[in-house]
Amino acid sequence: MTDYFVGVDIGGTNVKVGLFDDQINLVDKDSVPTNADMGPEFVVEQIGKTARDLIAKANFTLDDVAGVGIGTPGPADYPRGIVIQSTNMPKFKNTPLRDMVSEQLQSPGVLENDANVACWGEFTVGVGKDIEDMVFFTLGTGIGGGIVCKGQLVTGSNYNAAELGHLIIYPGGRVCGCGQKGCVEAYASANSTAKRAQEAVEAGEESSLKEVLDKTGQITCKDVFDHSAAGDALAKKITDGTAEALAIICINMLHTTEPTRVVFSGGVIAAGKPLLDAIQNYFDKLVWTLKPEPLEICFATLGEDTGIIGAAALAKHAKQQGKFD
Amino acid sequence: MTDYFVGVDIGGTNVKVGLFDDQINLVDKDSVPTNADMGPEFVVEQIGKTARDLIAKANFTLDDVAGVGIGTPGPADYPRGIVIQSTNMPKFKNTPLRDMVSEQLQSPGVLENDANVACWGEFTVGVGKDIEDMVFFTLGTGIGGGIVCKGQLVTGSNYNAAELGHLIIYPGGRVCGCGQKGCVEAYASANSTAKRAQEAVEAGEESSLKEVLDKTGQITCKDVFDHSAAGDALAKKITDGTAEALAIICINMLHTTEPTRVVFSGGVIAAGKPLLDAIQNYFDKLVWTLKPEPLEICFATLGEDTGIIGAAALAKHAKQQGKFD
Repeated sequence: MTDYFVGVDIGGTNVKVGLFDDQINLVDKDSVPTNADMGPEFVVEQIGKTARDLIAKANFTLDDVAGVGIGTPGPADYPRGIVIQSTNMPKFKNTPLRDMVSEQLQSPGVLENDANVACWGEFTVGVGKDIEDMVFFTLGTGIGGGIVCKGQLVTGSNYNAAELGHLIIYPGGRVCGCGQKGCVEAYASANSTAKRAQEAVEAGEESSLKEVLDKTGQITCKDVFDHSAAGDALAKKITDGTAEALAIICINMLHTTEPTRVVFSGGVIAAGKPLLDAIQNYFDKLVWTLKPEPLEICFATLGEDTGIIGAAALAKHAKQQGKFD
Repeated sequence: MTDYFVGVDIGGTNVKVGLFDDQINLVDKDSVPTNADMGPEFVVEQIGKTARDLIAKANFTLDDVAGVGIGTPGPADYPRGIVIQSTNMPKFKNTPLRDMVSEQLQSPGVLENDANVACWGEFTVGVGKDIEDMVFFTLGTGIGGGIVCKGQLVTGSNYNAAELGHLIIYPGGRVCGCGQKGCVEAYASANSTAKRAQEAVEAGEESSLKEVLDKTGQITCKDVFDHSAAGDALAKKITDGTAEALAIICINMLHTTEPTRVVFSGGVIAAGKPLLDAIQNYFDKLVWTLKPEPLEICFATLGEDTGIIGAAALAKHAKQQGKFD
């Protein structure tokens, strides 16, 4: 008998559901609006229906499903599978999401935060599948992280490890949404990159980005990278700031868990090779000279399915570890 | 039958050897000059003789020894037990130290770097014995580190993890011996604390430390803490700088592996409660406000025997993991 796994990726806007075989190959997937304002029962019933439809379409039954993995933004009590609260889903409060989804699919479940889920997906199926030690960053609105040491996710003493966006690299620097000053997130996330550019333009620095700001009322991270690629000096300076901050956290993670690879994912990596090259250049310039460092810095490869892949892979891992017995 | 373990702590000046029971209680210990200039064969024979004398004195035989742990400064190929080179012991080059010591005691051995050994000692026998996740710093001439996640030492992809003295916290800042700029070691080690004070005095800043410098030609870290405690403003400022740098790495490690406790050890902790309080105050001031953080910051408790205790405890751990089978 082959085991199948369901991966669920719950975002504020959409819920993605994927059905995978025991090698975490995608069988089928679907996406539905989250409708979080309808409350957790509604959302979970939708997840259940979407998954059961995929299972029926594939000519399986619920008996073929060995486990379901669920990725969600925190804060949550992950071991107990309970969402404590959620910025994007205010009606989720102390919601036993894991067990509710499990019940829908009559299958054991595992709940993990979305950055760890994406990290686990890349580690097991994507760019990390041939290594044991990896560090993973999601560069989006904010910066999330995941750490794998010797094939295990580092979860921390209280399931809040790998909040890597909140590493302080410029003490006394820019104020972060978390209340700290000088977090890497306050410099190198998509939002912060855009914000640093917009502040500079508003302060009167000369840049082709001024036209964007005048026309649209705001500057996006993509604008910054586009104008940098087109040769604008300010946009280049801002992009370099993002790359330098990311290089510093690569160095710091090298000296902490010493991964074989640091993997960047999320919207920001659409900036492509110029950004990756800039990070690598800063890394080479700033890292110690004691010995050559073989750390590989690269971009994630799984794309938009990372969430469901990682969730299914985590369910498989939980089963292998005997957590579903 | 009870298993006994031997712990060896090889320093540039002295070699310490301890004999421990299977609960890592000290049976007996001894210390001999390293005489590193006599070469590895001589040093290892001394280690063997010292250990065998302890064993005989306790009325045991070599058969009672289940394993030997050896702590040494790197760089080394720890899994293969080979010292690649050593600043303090220049005649040690590609020396198969583990197997040489093993042969002396006819017992399987394990080699680990000295900061990891000290970390493991505190984790298993000292201040970390009731927890699963710990971060450990040695504050001496330099700054070393050790990380324990869910009861396992984090060794990294290439056995160079936890080089925590080289976390960059002030990019573009003071030059570190490693070649990087702005490492925590360049601010908060005993040497750097003393050096920052001496530079300030030499630059003409007013301080009671000037008399020390004039009289002895140098300022030590202890001088800085003593004069700070006595109320000297510059010494207080320098001490605060050390505490702030240490608080920042506590915050960064909280957001990385999320330990239950961060433990500081080494000569610098002789500064006592005023330093610990200052670190805690900076931590409270600088850490995020998203949620209260229960991280405990404390000093190590094992003192000068940490090295032999940790080495013996690592040998026990290796045996339990089946590495000696």
